[in-house]
Amino acid sequence: MLYLIGLGLGDVEDIGVRGLRIARQAVRVYFEMYTAILDGPDNGIPALEKLLERSVIPADRETLEEKADDILDGADKDDVVVLVVGDPMAATTHSDLILRAKTKNIPVKIIHNSSIISAVGATGLQVYRFGIVVSIVFWTETWKPRSFAQHISQNLQRGLHTLCLLDIRVKEPDMQALIRGRRVYEAPRFMTVAQAASQLLEIVRHPDPSTDTEPPVAFTADTPCVGIARLGLQTERMVAGRLRDLAEVDLGGPLHSLIVCGQLHPLEVEFLRTFALNDFLDSVPTG
Amino acid sequence: MLYLIGLGLGDVEDIGVRGLRIARQAVRVYFEMYTAILDGPDNGIPALEKLLERSVIPADRETLEEKADDILDGADKDDVVVLVVGDPMAATTHSDLILRAKTKNIPVKIIHNSSIISAVGATGLQVYRFGIVVSIVFWTETWKPRSFAQHISQNLQRGLHTLCLLDIRVKEPDMQALIRGRRVYEAPRFMTVAQAASQLLEIVRHPDPSTDTEPPVAFTADTPCVGIARLGLQTERMVAGRLRDLAEVDLGGPLHSLIVCGQLHPLEVEFLRTFALNDFLDSVPTG
Repeated sequence: MLYLIGLGLGDVEDIGVRGLRIARQAVRVYFEMYTAILDGPDNGIPALEKLLERSVIPADRETLEEKADDILDGADKDDVVVLVVGDPMAATTHSDLILRAKTKNIPVKIIHNSSIISAVGATGLQVYRFGIVVSIVFWTETWKPRSFAQHISQNLQRGLHTLCLLDIRVKEPDMQALIRGRRVYEAPRFMTVAQAASQLLEIVRHPDPSTDTEPPVAFTADTPCVGIARLGLQTERMVAGRLRDLAEVDLGGPLHSLIVCGQLHPLEVEFLRTFALNDFLDSVPTG
Repeated sequence: MLYLIGLGLGDVEDIGVRGLRIARQAVRVYFEMYTAILDGPDNGIPALEKLLERSVIPADRETLEEKADDILDGADKDDVVVLVVGDPMAATTHSDLILRAKTKNIPVKIIHNSSIISAVGATGLQVYRFGIVVSIVFWTETWKPRSFAQHISQNLQRGLHTLCLLDIRVKEPDMQALIRGRRVYEAPRFMTVAQAASQLLEIVRHPDPSTDTEPPVAFTADTPCVGIARLGLQTERMVAGRLRDLAEVDLGGPLHSLIVCGQLHPLEVEFLRTFALNDFLDSVPTG
């Protein structure tokens, strides 16, 4: 059996009792470590291995994509586990691994765990009032995609909140080195709430008529937003402010996420007030 | 400290290692049991109490809403736990409890767990391609709300999938008895995938011009859908079919959910094929 076991938001002890039992007994345990991080002083692989009372095999993007056959080897008879931070089914790569297992007649079982997608309810914003999730990627000098702004605007037109997942660059190949035939990796980078808010502000301040016309950009520098850092960990931080407030905020280490708020319900406002940066909520219409 | 601890999708052993430790040591443990169920032969309160090695206090809607002060009593000094199936922050009532705790200066900690909102990725449909979540309620002879059809249609116009949460009626007061001054409860009811699909089909077949004009109903009897039963449990079942196929399907006991598919990616189609009811996917355009 191939088990995909979710680890939740990043505290090793968030693994479920059932998942822990299965991982302890499996013949091999892989630990997927590129779509999220297992953070904190008492976290990371040593803490995971201590809790599981066994060694784990770190699996980066290359291993999962290029060595799927090695991972699946023997899984028709014995249990093989892939541990995934968050929920195992929030990243496409695992669909791929599951389909490959199915073609080999290897049974697959998923043990779900929390993911930012649902845990975002910790902000007091109602999960039922969110539209499509977007990803905000690091802009470069020459590449400044804006499609996330269109999705946020479409959500806002319907009064919906938008969860923005912020770019993670872990073990990205250095393209200059790759051209010279060497595989070298860039240092890991994580987009902060301030960086994401700044990119959104640049869109507000310099709209691009060629891409921003349909729909028009529906957020402004005053749109209520929530910045989230290290959700679910001991050092979790949440702040509510206007978009321009969040462009100035320092929420510390990764991971960060940003919410652009749609129409706010009075109970949502009351909740946001408990971690608001200033009194901006006094002038926000609710409904 | 008030702890809200998620139990995940319904297997008692899906509680996290950290949550288990905290619940074992708390002075009181409540078990919230109205927004979802803890199902299965080895589940339910006895299994939960065995795992926790202690008794739990069942808390229904009345307890959580009307007796919040009892729950919070002493939580400024000792640990009080509320166990919630799914993720604790997917239901509004808990925002309310947290706000009440905050006004009493009682610290609150949430231990997240999986929820249908993110675990829906188990279908192979990408979590990033879902629009707003909707709830489909039981129609009566005289009350047939259709707002969920508008949300589904708006999602479809943007090519997005819709997760439909299906009505749960646990410990609903019998209104006839209540009028006569007695508090009697109806038997628990859970909407099935077939019932939900039938209600959507009725909207397709008998559009109501007074409510269905903006936007027009964007799904048909042939729209690809996925029926899910008991997600994450041993008896989990998933089927893919046209809306009219799902109106005929029997997926067994609760809980059920329904997905109305938007634009399908080829990898999503490949995944759905592994549990499709028939060959309808051969004629579905992808992109």
